Amino acid sequence: MEGNASGCSVYEIISKKRDGYELSTEEIQFFITGYVKGEIPDYQAAALMMAIYLRGMNQREMTDLTRIMMHSGDLISLDGIDGKKIDKHSTGGVGDKISFVLSPLVAACGIKVPMLSGRSLGHTGGTLDKLESIPGFKVLLQPDEFKKTLRDVGMVISGQTENVVPADRKLYALRDSTATVNSIPLIAGSIMSKKLALGTDGIILDVKTGSGAFMSELEDSIELCKTLVAVGENANRTTIGLITHMDQPLGNTVGNSLEIKESIEALKGNGPADVMEVTLGLSACMLVAAGIEKNHNKAIEKLEKALKSGKPLEIFKRFIAAQGGDPRVCDDYSLAFPQQIPGGIPGGKKRVYLNNQRL
Amino acid sequence: MEGNASGCSVYEIISKKRDGYELSTEEIQFFITGYVKGEIPDYQAAALMMAIYLRGMNQREMTDLTRIMMHSGDLISLDGIDGKKIDKHSTGGVGDKISFVLSPLVAACGIKVPMLSGRSLGHTGGTLDKLESIPGFKVLLQPDEFKKTLRDVGMVISGQTENVVPADRKLYALRDSTATVNSIPLIAGSIMSKKLALGTDGIILDVKTGSGAFMSELEDSIELCKTLVAVGENANRTTIGLITHMDQPLGNTVGNSLEIKESIEALKGNGPADVMEVTLGLSACMLVAAGIEKNHNKAIEKLEKALKSGKPLEIFKRFIAAQGGDPRVCDDYSLAFPQQIPGGIPGGKKRVYLNNQRL
Repeated sequence: MEGNASGCSVYEIISKKRDGYELSTEEIQFFITGYVKGEIPDYQAAALMMAIYLRGMNQREMTDLTRIMMHSGDLISLDGIDGKKIDKHSTGGVGDKISFVLSPLVAACGIKVPMLSGRSLGHTGGTLDKLESIPGFKVLLQPDEFKKTLRDVGMVISGQTENVVPADRKLYALRDSTATVNSIPLIAGSIMSKKLALGTDGIILDVKTGSGAFMSELEDSIELCKTLVAVGENANRTTIGLITHMDQPLGNTVGNSLEIKESIEALKGNGPADVMEVTLGLSACMLVAAGIEKNHNKAIEKLEKALKSGKPLEIFKRFIAAQGGDPRVCDDYSLAFPQQIPGGIPGGKKRVYLNNQRL
Repeated sequence: MEGNASGCSVYEIISKKRDGYELSTEEIQFFITGYVKGEIPDYQAAALMMAIYLRGMNQREMTDLTRIMMHSGDLISLDGIDGKKIDKHSTGGVGDKISFVLSPLVAACGIKVPMLSGRSLGHTGGTLDKLESIPGFKVLLQPDEFKKTLRDVGMVISGQTENVVPADRKLYALRDSTATVNSIPLIAGSIMSKKLALGTDGIILDVKTGSGAFMSELEDSIELCKTLVAVGENANRTTIGLITHMDQPLGNTVGNSLEIKESIEALKGNGPADVMEVTLGLSACMLVAAGIEKNHNKAIEKLEKALKSGKPLEIFKRFIAAQGGDPRVCDDYSLAFPQQIPGGIPGGKKRVYLNNQRL
């Protein structure tokens, strides 16, 4: 595809980025639109992804990329739902089950927690895969079901529908096979376009660092975190980032059904220290972002009190039931299906379990 | 395509080059073989081409790339043809008609000059396109016709058959649409794999520099020239490179049939000074490479004498006739078809003609 009414040409766009120049808003728009429509072929997109990987993007380009990717598909409005809607995103790591503890805990404090989650990427288990170990649980909700669950229960977790940020769906698959995933501008575009497509009041970002994380160098994690926050703020969304250590899997278990059980135990007050530390830290940020508490330590006190009240566990049971699952799993763990983590477990970790077996 | 008996994976190969590491011989072999077979998709190849463009290759990698590309298809043996076989290659520029003067001139001195030429690339007219302005001229010869013409006439110019360096055919098309043409390692692999596939005794390289050339910076042209010579020498082929200026089109005319006419005039002793300077310089290198003359200036004297003898013009007529064309075109220029140069003429040049019209 060479040239069009906008005067852009994909060849020129690739050449410019290859030579280290800034792409204009029109050029980014032309590329994303053309690629999603199938007018720009994968091989040209792959060359551009590698050029972006090696040459980078400045903040203006990343903000444009994110916004344009976000608008490549449907936006999910949460209008008409009372209360502050705050979303949490983790950049992924092994054994991360934070969402299952954090969401009901924060919901118990009056915040609405809507989450669009993903499947497993490589060795990290996906949030949706973990939830599917609960018998009957539906991980893909229609927009009206999504809103109803959020309104009624205070939390909801669903996979994305095809129409939310189709640009990311297509680009991620391409990046995954062309060694261009680990690029900060491309990660920022991918994560933030999906977060911004959901009409929340604020976004809390949990950027993992260390040997068990997506990015192992602290320096890279700090840069990614700052970038994500800047892109969120540039889009006029309250955004708070937290860098958390992940040198080994969080908690005591790795494995879909085991992690669900460990999360339920945490809601019963028996959470491992590392899981609780990260959960409370992120939850406190959500309370601050929602304006419920101004002080981080006070927010933590409030959350600890809420946990003791038993309300978060009740919310989690209602959440399971609302999404078609059997809430009795919270009292009888034998009802959860053991499931294999796609891609297996990376070696050298302590306290690693797969399908109930210690490795 | 991930992994195989060789232990290579295209994802790993892209990642290594992306991070600036050297690719092993096995990795280059794995990539070229897999890509030619269609087992590695265009988008992975495009990502690798951009990584090579931005990260480069060392001389060992380039020599391997060239040799492996050369062996991706048929080799053209010139065994059984007497005399030294010397090939000339120009990196392209506007208005270059050197081959038509040089080949019969050098053949008149007893050297066999076999050339596999190409079509127009962008704004430069292709050697084959120019020859097609001669009525009846066949630009695509079968291997036996190619050898017969070379043996009988002393020169031959043909397009390449599909089976010569298929890796370049496929990679060039990809590079052309992904802004990865202008990379020295990739240019070296492309040019030298084709030159080496032809069983000559020596290769003379004419690397153009200046605003009318493929590479406009002298520094880049020197690097390219040195690289091409090194790759040729590493493959045990006598290789001599000459950097020639091309700040405006060579000669007085640009246009397929006009350039054929100007070449015939040069063979009659009426060549423009710039065309004759480059032709004699390159031809002298061919005499030196063949061992016919040791001294460049003496070689030039010999060539000037040969030109005056009228023998080169006779050889050119026999060459036209041997390839099915009408040799009377040499005496009656009105027999040549005027043809449009694909892509047009770049602006700002003096003495530029298109279809017999001064622009």
